[in-house]
Amino acid sequence: MEERQISKAVIKRLPRYYRYLGEMLQNGVERISSGELSNKMQVTASQIRQDLNNFGGFGQQGYGYNVKYLYDEIGRILGVDKLHPMIIIGGGNFGHALANYDFEKNGFVTKAIFDVRPSLVGTSVRGIPVLMMDELESFVEKERVEIAVLTLPKDRVAEAAGRLVACGIKALWNFAHLDLDVPKDVVVENVHLVDSLMQLSYRISNYESGKEKEE
Amino acid sequence: MEERQISKAVIKRLPRYYRYLGEMLQNGVERISSGELSNKMQVTASQIRQDLNNFGGFGQQGYGYNVKYLYDEIGRILGVDKLHPMIIIGGGNFGHALANYDFEKNGFVTKAIFDVRPSLVGTSVRGIPVLMMDELESFVEKERVEIAVLTLPKDRVAEAAGRLVACGIKALWNFAHLDLDVPKDVVVENVHLVDSLMQLSYRISNYESGKEKEE
Repeated sequence: MEERQISKAVIKRLPRYYRYLGEMLQNGVERISSGELSNKMQVTASQIRQDLNNFGGFGQQGYGYNVKYLYDEIGRILGVDKLHPMIIIGGGNFGHALANYDFEKNGFVTKAIFDVRPSLVGTSVRGIPVLMMDELESFVEKERVEIAVLTLPKDRVAEAAGRLVACGIKALWNFAHLDLDVPKDVVVENVHLVDSLMQLSYRISNYESGKEKEE
Repeated sequence: MEERQISKAVIKRLPRYYRYLGEMLQNGVERISSGELSNKMQVTASQIRQDLNNFGGFGQQGYGYNVKYLYDEIGRILGVDKLHPMIIIGGGNFGHALANYDFEKNGFVTKAIFDVRPSLVGTSVRGIPVLMMDELESFVEKERVEIAVLTLPKDRVAEAAGRLVACGIKALWNFAHLDLDVPKDVVVENVHLVDSLMQLSYRISNYESGKEKEE
């Protein structure tokens, strides 16, 4: 398959394709035209063709897509065909909630939750142990942890991120409401909940007046 | 201020401007040049000028921006100068975690958590009562609830969304991993965690090979 530069917008759409294709597979659909896929996903057929052409196509004119093949290929592109060992930093409400999520089925395996509160020593969430922060470096190395989920208070995130980067973590999934300053080769994916709520309130305030436009 | 169509990309950046300006205000900064703002935010100065020009400018050539004024105006544009009554549907881990978040300081006031489990009747989270789903419609009307946060399992979201739309909710903040089918005048903002993780794993797999490009 030819390799070329892929835009962020395409990468954003891939997980959605993957999700829809997974649902079709579950429903026993074997083949789908770009027109049908377009209808289901409310994305234009030409957009779908264009997106998939970034990765070499997958469809034959007039024959549509083989659902299983497309699903597997997109999974491979997204890297969810591999296991990704993950840890959660912060054993508060949010860390707990995330530990209860079954990200495993997409290859993201939570190995431990890290906290600083001695009262949490020996506890676990869904079988995932809560460990103390002084075990962080040795655990990351031993378990070859790739991803750290940051659910710490804002004022303690920078220090934790620094330690994680120093021990070779590849990616930070950041729920703290600030932008991290890390080396360029560390992947950061932010989930800024307050930003999301503000976009929502912008849209509440401006929807009626028709000021919003699609891009 | 002149009204015109604003692109989604600009709306996405506004909460970030608002956050940085808020931090500057807290640190006693009164005035900032677009160059300094650009440095702090790692967005080009011309991008900042362009974004703010969508709303009429706010800056005088050579004088920079008045931080407090810009902060207040962006807050007004985002609609966070008003109170937004909110409810959480689903009293599980995630609903709990969100109820513990202090969204109030940006005007988002959680009034209640709704669930179907009778064992939760009479309980509360940080003073926010857990109510049963059969009280939903009357509560939304009485409290003039604008926003419903959906933290339900995937197979129960559609029904809840339908009831919320029917009783006049303005916006859905959706954490369930599916796309909602609601009338066009209902605002939907999705937080699809699995999609976010998949973008992260894509970037882990492809960063080294330099396939990713900025947009």
